[in-house]
Amino acid sequence: MNYRQHRDAEEALDSFEAPEPTEEEEDGDLKRLCLQEDGRKLGWWKRLQPKVWALFEDPYSSKAARYIAFASLFFILISITTFCLETHEAFNEIINKTETTTQNNVTKTEIILEVETEPFLTYVEGMCVIWFTFEFFMRVLFCPDKMEFIKSSLNIIDFVAILPFYLEVGLSGLSSKAAKDVLGFLRVVRFVRILRIFKLTRHFVGLRVLGHTLRASTNEFLLLIIFLALGVLIFATMIYYAERIGAEPDTNFKNIPIGFWWAVVTMTTLGYGDMYPVTWSGMLVGALCALAGVLTIAMPVPVIVNNFGMYYSLAMAKQKLPKKKNKHIPRAPQPGSPNYCKPDMQSPHRSAPGDACPLAQEEIIEINRAGKRKE
Amino acid sequence: MNYRQHRDAEEALDSFEAPEPTEEEEDGDLKRLCLQEDGRKLGWWKRLQPKVWALFEDPYSSKAARYIAFASLFFILISITTFCLETHEAFNEIINKTETTTQNNVTKTEIILEVETEPFLTYVEGMCVIWFTFEFFMRVLFCPDKMEFIKSSLNIIDFVAILPFYLEVGLSGLSSKAAKDVLGFLRVVRFVRILRIFKLTRHFVGLRVLGHTLRASTNEFLLLIIFLALGVLIFATMIYYAERIGAEPDTNFKNIPIGFWWAVVTMTTLGYGDMYPVTWSGMLVGALCALAGVLTIAMPVPVIVNNFGMYYSLAMAKQKLPKKKNKHIPRAPQPGSPNYCKPDMQSPHRSAPGDACPLAQEEIIEINRAGKRKE
Amino acid sequence: MNYRQHRDAEEALDSFEAPEPTEEEEDGDLKRLCLQEDGRKLGWWKRLQPKVWALFEDPYSSKAARYIAFASLFFILISITTFCLETHEAFNEIINKTETTTQNNVTKTEIILEVETEPFLTYVEGMCVIWFTFEFFMRVLFCPDKMEFIKSSLNIIDFVAILPFYLEVGLSGLSSKAAKDVLGFLRVVRFVRILRIFKLTRHFVGLRVLGHTLRASTNEFLLLIIFLALGVLIFATMIYYAERIGAEPDTNFKNIPIGFWWAVVTMTTLGYGDMYPVTWSGMLVGALCALAGVLTIAMPVPVIVNNFGMYYSLAMAKQKLPKKKNKHIPRAPQPGSPNYCKPDMQSPHRSAPGDACPLAQEEIIEINRAGKRKE
Amino acid sequence: MNYRQHRDAEEALDSFEAPEPTEEEEDGDLKRLCLQEDGRKLGWWKRLQPKVWALFEDPYSSKAARYIAFASLFFILISITTFCLETHEAFNEIINKTETTTQNNVTKTEIILEVETEPFLTYVEGMCVIWFTFEFFMRVLFCPDKMEFIKSSLNIIDFVAILPFYLEVGLSGLSSKAAKDVLGFLRVVRFVRILRIFKLTRHFVGLRVLGHTLRASTNEFLLLIIFLALGVLIFATMIYYAERIGAEPDTNFKNIPIGFWWAVVTMTTLGYGDMYPVTWSGMLVGALCALAGVLTIAMPVPVIVNNFGMYYSLAMAKQKLPKKKNKHIPRAPQPGSPNYCKPDMQSPHRSAPGDACPLAQEEIIEINRAGKRKE
Repeated sequence: MNYRQHRDAEEALDSFEAPEPTEEEEDGDLKRLCLQEDGRKLGWWKRLQPKVWALFEDPYSSKAARYIAFASLFFILISITTFCLETHEAFNEIINKTETTTQNNVTKTEIILEVETEPFLTYVEGMCVIWFTFEFFMRVLFCPDKMEFIKSSLNIIDFVAILPFYLEVGLSGLSSKAAKDVLGFLRVVRFVRILRIFKLTRHFVGLRVLGHTLRASTNEFLLLIIFLALGVLIFATMIYYAERIGAEPDTNFKNIPIGFWWAVVTMTTLGYGDMYPVTWSGMLVGALCALAGVLTIAMPVPVIVNNFGMYYSLAMAKQKLPKKKNKHIPRAPQPGSPNYCKPDMQSPHRSAPGDACPLAQEEIIEINRAGKRKE
Repeated sequence: MNYRQHRDAEEALDSFEAPEPTEEEEDGDLKRLCLQEDGRKLGWWKRLQPKVWALFEDPYSSKAARYIAFASLFFILISITTFCLETHEAFNEIINKTETTTQNNVTKTEIILEVETEPFLTYVEGMCVIWFTFEFFMRVLFCPDKMEFIKSSLNIIDFVAILPFYLEVGLSGLSSKAAKDVLGFLRVVRFVRILRIFKLTRHFVGLRVLGHTLRASTNEFLLLIIFLALGVLIFATMIYYAERIGAEPDTNFKNIPIGFWWAVVTMTTLGYGDMYPVTWSGMLVGALCALAGVLTIAMPVPVIVNNFGMYYSLAMAKQKLPKKKNKHIPRAPQPGSPNYCKPDMQSPHRSAPGDACPLAQEEIIEINRAGKRKE
Repeated sequence: MNYRQHRDAEEALDSFEAPEPTEEEEDGDLKRLCLQEDGRKLGWWKRLQPKVWALFEDPYSSKAARYIAFASLFFILISITTFCLETHEAFNEIINKTETTTQNNVTKTEIILEVETEPFLTYVEGMCVIWFTFEFFMRVLFCPDKMEFIKSSLNIIDFVAILPFYLEVGLSGLSSKAAKDVLGFLRVVRFVRILRIFKLTRHFVGLRVLGHTLRASTNEFLLLIIFLALGVLIFATMIYYAERIGAEPDTNFKNIPIGFWWAVVTMTTLGYGDMYPVTWSGMLVGALCALAGVLTIAMPVPVIVNNFGMYYSLAMAKQKLPKKKNKHIPRAPQPGSPNYCKPDMQSPHRSAPGDACPLAQEEIIEINRAGKRKE
Repeated sequence: MNYRQHRDAEEALDSFEAPEPTEEEEDGDLKRLCLQEDGRKLGWWKRLQPKVWALFEDPYSSKAARYIAFASLFFILISITTFCLETHEAFNEIINKTETTTQNNVTKTEIILEVETEPFLTYVEGMCVIWFTFEFFMRVLFCPDKMEFIKSSLNIIDFVAILPFYLEVGLSGLSSKAAKDVLGFLRVVRFVRILRIFKLTRHFVGLRVLGHTLRASTNEFLLLIIFLALGVLIFATMIYYAERIGAEPDTNFKNIPIGFWWAVVTMTTLGYGDMYPVTWSGMLVGALCALAGVLTIAMPVPVIVNNFGMYYSLAMAKQKLPKKKNKHIPRAPQPGSPNYCKPDMQSPHRSAPGDACPLAQEEIIEINRAGKRKE
């Protein structure tokens, strides 16, 4: 697995390196732009903007930024807890609402059972949404590159996850039929709030590593799914015929599609026990299926796990490096030095490739050395 | 695991290389033969044949070939979906057929419950079969080496999977008793259609890698099965006696053969829950069985997984290489060059070992280089 | 995983080295103190203390120490067995106690069902506690550094695990109301006795390795738990909505929190079968959940397993080395030698870094040599 | 894991090498002894003995030996199949036997339900036993070293597994009370026949590798079992208290010992579903238990798996080497060559260390080289 691992490691270094320096770069870009414009009018903005942006984006930039990060984390967790508890029957009252509708001079009195959520949870949710809105608007306002901000999937999630609340609040005042329909729809769409979990990505390095791993392992995931799909198809067919040969009258395996579920449960060695073969031929198929499942899953998983291990060790290594120091010690430009970095340095002011890259290089050398010693 | 891995890697390189250049070789063989014969009569055939063959065999040869590959993939998926849905009761109507049989002047009226599949599904299946037939005949007609074509297991599957449909159609017109019996048999044999899944091998590299892995790991599979069989035997015996000591009257473990199923379910950590020990001694056996199962499966699997990882990385490396270019640049024979290939080149006309082998070498070099520069 | 592995190995060497030489160091510390004081009065104590301490602390120091270690191990196992059996109904008699309470001149006769544990088990427990008390007091008395002794979590566990027994015995004589309440509380708190398991750490190297691994892998555990929590949250939400779409009336998935349990059971591939999806959408979610679980667990586990493997091999290597010999050969201080140890040597008298560290070095060399010749 | 792996590999080479040359050596030893004695009387025996011994011991020595090995394998499989089928109710008839006993002049007629096994199976078993007896006696007679033969556990198994049949046959003729009691006991002891499975070790290399692995991994097995025992204890206690807090009246977790079973089933991710927590606290414990189980098993297993991988690759490497050739081509003694082999060559006639050892050495060198290239 030498070649592939090596190639992946290189890609990993690139992709893992990428997200970090960009902001810095954008910072620099912006600064340069501002300098080229007249520096007077935008003076206070120029000074304020990067600070506020750092406050909300980089928890390590200052003490206040750390508090904001903690507040954000706290509200995310509260919001998700609320979301989960809302569905519990202990927090849902069933109210008998008598609704009188006058239609064609006949007054009908209908009793509608309406599920009303505990108001306390709604208030908590409201508070969370207010914080998220505040955070979102601050980030929109002070972000250095509006286009990139909009394109980021995390920001879209931010927006989508707060929208339904405002719509619900806005529509709950109206009593028209259409408003009610929309409200009913919104009640279902509420589950987009679970997307707030992905906001945690900003706070945990591990999740970012996971994200990188998933993106880098798309091929392997596809492979895993194709393998499983194949296995499921073959074993669902086999169990269907095997159990039909046994001719049990009330077999669970009535058709092949229901056999899919059994095959999945067996191949992942879940074994719920809702369906299991009862004939000898079926048991043989079951044994083969379990074995095939173990192998099917065991084969592509190490590739994915390897990817994760690589990204994880890079992330760990990076966290240990003196992060801030490198930013503040400018080095003299070294034009003669070969440029090993990927050519994503458009800004001319970043004339010191030694700023980030030779460090990375050293890292690689050390990694290689460690690798030679170790393996 | 050093020595073995190395040896396997070498074998893998050979075996993975093998299937690709052969067609090319056959091409060459054919061309040479044609040239030796008179080139006039077979002129148009000589020009057409390789093109049509590439059209159906190599999806990367042309745009049309890609469309055909997609069509083939589409029909395979449709056909398998149809196959699975056919067994679902929603697509099966039960028809009461009254059949009057006159026997010895006594007319009996029997009501036969006949299961009739949704005609829509039959039409879809028909369409798929027509496509598969067309594809199969084109491949038969334009293949360069008929003998090899017939010997290929994939082509046999192609043929077997379309045969039952035509037989069914042909026989459904007849009303004789024999025809009906054959029809009944064919209805059961219908499941050969699931073999069409293996046609996917032509379209997914991952499946070919899986195939190579399975073939290369026959020994390990055998080992895994022997280990499991041994464990199953021992633990089935142990649970049988352990539960009998406990003397529960309605134990599930009535004999050793039924204990096999329990042992398999336990060793693969499936745990359906249809059978489980209830006595203390049985529980101890169960715990040992689960532990032994984990170890039994964990031991030979890494060898198989290693094989997969190796083939997979080779396949990935190969996909990245410029494939077509190398084929069209003929090189002069280099008789003095050391022969790195394994000596399976029987045909004397293949005097250029550089044809395929230095390529392999170059490939490795290129891989290394690709790894070194940021690819 | 090169760089990380290397760093971890280095840390491992340090941390694994740490616990062993400390006693030796404390020994030295104490000796020095004694020498500085007048050596007459403390003469017998000075001679006795290290011997008794070694007797209870280091099972390899003498034959008697080995017997004491075995006795200790025996009592731990007996005590835990007693603890487990106590809860079994076979060892618990239910006694009808008639209790007459005179309240406001009215005499009430209440029948109280009191659970009484088999007296035999109580006697066994008593014996174990007596041994543990003896051992604890000997260790307190003869330990060279009282502060460190108190701070050690193992010693705290020792103390906590014997306390409830004495309190119970002491209070059982009293008949006041308060004493009974405390007794009732103690009966519940009895489970602290299970902490005695951790006393086994003193006797098994494997458990110490486990402890080191757990401490070294805190980050990875956190990661694993975050990953699982995330997966559980997402899949609990998905299964809740998926099963609601299916609109089964008596679904098990009544709310998201109960879905957590299902998600955990599915992601760990346990599959108890108490809850399982019954709708098509739910089954799809189930399949995804099982797959995600396998990956979620497979990803951070190898890092933890690696840590374990490293500590384990270090522990194994250490056990093979001639242990006692090195302790008795004092070396001259080598002030000029470079200090390879981590700078945790606060005491100035430890001027011989060669005391412990070159040993570590030698150890590595010896390991390598041992590896080279057929050991 | 460098040091340990290396050390284990060396040990593996030794231990794997060991069983093969010994017979050869013993052969030699014997030959030498015979030569020193007078060669006349023992002439035919001297010639016959090694041939017959090879016939039964080494299936690769001749064509006849291969047939005997196949026969042996066949009878083992038949015998085990018979053993398993015997317990099935389809092969057991229940016979009402009326037995009249005259006691104190009163004649009582008792109806005894006697289970009689299908006679066919008994005949098959008899045939197998006859073969095994023949094989065993041939091996006893012609083995070169009787002491070693008796000490071998495989030969003891051979003997123990055929004994009960003869005893049963011998005793079935007698009608005394004591004979019947012994017969009843023998019927239970019948299960020793399952030990015949271990006779397969002679025929499958994989099983010998497994045996070596198990012997080499005793420490790790102990570790695994200690870890599991610890986890089981802790989680059984936790679930007991957790479910008691929840105060469900009909909880499954009535005492800690029954909790052991649940903990084992959960830690191995079996999840039969016969017991599962129903309270929130219990579910939390269950989740932790499953997670702990995955880690507990995942940690020591790789060490064992590594051992297996090593022995397996050695066995594979050995099988590929030209085995017979080396035996028949005697080389000139090379007294000047350093002796790299382990010094277990006591016999002076084995003056050619190059016979087997330099080959082994080359192997190691190649392994090392392959290792360097690969890793």
